[in-house]
Amino acid sequence: MREGLKIFKIGGGIIDDTAQLGQFLTQFAQVPGRKMLVHGGGKGASQMLTDLGIEPNMVQGRRITDAPTLDIVTMFYAGKTNKQVVALLQAAGVNALGLSGADGNAIRAVKRPVQDIDYGFVGDLPEGSINTALLDQLLQASITPVFCAITHDGQGQLLNTNADTIASTLGRALAARYEVELHFCFEKDGVLRDLNDEASVIPQITADQYQQLKAGGIIAAGMVPKLDNAFAALEAGVERVVIENALKINEPVKTVLCRS
Amino acid sequence: MREGLKIFKIGGGIIDDTAQLGQFLTQFAQVPGRKMLVHGGGKGASQMLTDLGIEPNMVQGRRITDAPTLDIVTMFYAGKTNKQVVALLQAAGVNALGLSGADGNAIRAVKRPVQDIDYGFVGDLPEGSINTALLDQLLQASITPVFCAITHDGQGQLLNTNADTIASTLGRALAARYEVELHFCFEKDGVLRDLNDEASVIPQITADQYQQLKAGGIIAAGMVPKLDNAFAALEAGVERVVIENALKINEPVKTVLCRS
Repeated sequence: MREGLKIFKIGGGIIDDTAQLGQFLTQFAQVPGRKMLVHGGGKGASQMLTDLGIEPNMVQGRRITDAPTLDIVTMFYAGKTNKQVVALLQAAGVNALGLSGADGNAIRAVKRPVQDIDYGFVGDLPEGSINTALLDQLLQASITPVFCAITHDGQGQLLNTNADTIASTLGRALAARYEVELHFCFEKDGVLRDLNDEASVIPQITADQYQQLKAGGIIAAGMVPKLDNAFAALEAGVERVVIENALKINEPVKTVLCRS
Repeated sequence: MREGLKIFKIGGGIIDDTAQLGQFLTQFAQVPGRKMLVHGGGKGASQMLTDLGIEPNMVQGRRITDAPTLDIVTMFYAGKTNKQVVALLQAAGVNALGLSGADGNAIRAVKRPVQDIDYGFVGDLPEGSINTALLDQLLQASITPVFCAITHDGQGQLLNTNADTIASTLGRALAARYEVELHFCFEKDGVLRDLNDEASVIPQITADQYQQLKAGGIIAAGMVPKLDNAFAALEAGVERVVIENALKINEPVKTVLCRS
């Protein structure tokens, strides 16, 4: 039987709120067994770019990661946020160790090819991106890896990579060795049947039910890419995907996605 | 027989010069055997503080690490510099892994007690600060730890710590397990007999000779704390201390300090 491994992903909103971040980390510390954390960015980096007078480089409504932007996001994500999270987890008794993809060659990305848009220093994660041997070694040493959303290309270039993508790619890669549970944490209690009713959390969704919910327009547009991604991870061997409130991870209310 | 371990420390000057940093890292990549790197800060953090309009908090001519300063130095040292160095070493074939003291509880510091001056968020390293088990595990996995000069207190607070102190404290702590060679790299070829003659490098200095050179005023004032610190490390079990040019680490010109 494979050992259990829980991978949590938290987004930018919670990173920006010190009190909420503390609450999440206290609850994360109580999660038993082997675990990992992936954190997104937060607004701090954008604020600093503005404060430094660096103009956002926008193309077709999307922010481009140019060289000055990459510098600042690396400082924020891999420096400030990652180290604060690690220090707080250490204080809560979790032996956390912060990683970018460059560290120990943990995640090797490929710079997104220029097609219609040049996204700049953005990294995608092809098959084989994850150094599973390193992560296995850390997990077996009872270390909790804490990933920021910065990777590298193996040729000396750091890259900005989506945190959701990092979490699900880690989950897929480690599924051969561990029974992986992927937890996407956000500000709602789960996937809602009615966006106007916070209490309408759907407790469980199978792949078939998801197709029906999507066809029926029940699953809101913004949720679709997240859930498509989640079901793809399940197809690729992840055991369970959980969509839940970052402040209620140890409470029963949540949406559990499963193959069938 | 203990295995060899070389710990290199580079300062701020070389961090600020991309070409020189690249040169150093290429040479560092060629150093055989188990090794570690400790890097200082550079001027980027001070420049950013100025750019953001954060006034330097100076007391008796010393910069105080207040909360906004700690934030920025953490971003620079643990974020930008550390991740760039790690990515460049990975490209050079070194399996580098960046660490602050918080990561894996690698270095637990104590906030400097307020006496005449409140230095702010500055960490000193008492006996037992180093997590030798973690470092041993990384080294045995052929990983090259790369430390920035940020530590933590184990209670959630990050602290700014002198990079020379980190290097020598690592050396002392690992001396029981490894035959440690501490390399302090700077912009000169070694300890000079005559400050005006770059070619007057003293190839070797024993503890007795150091006392004579110091008494005779041959060793310049600025070098004294560095060398006092180096000889203390030798007393504490470090095998060899090398003072050398960061751009010539694989060349024979250097000063080797030894007990006798």
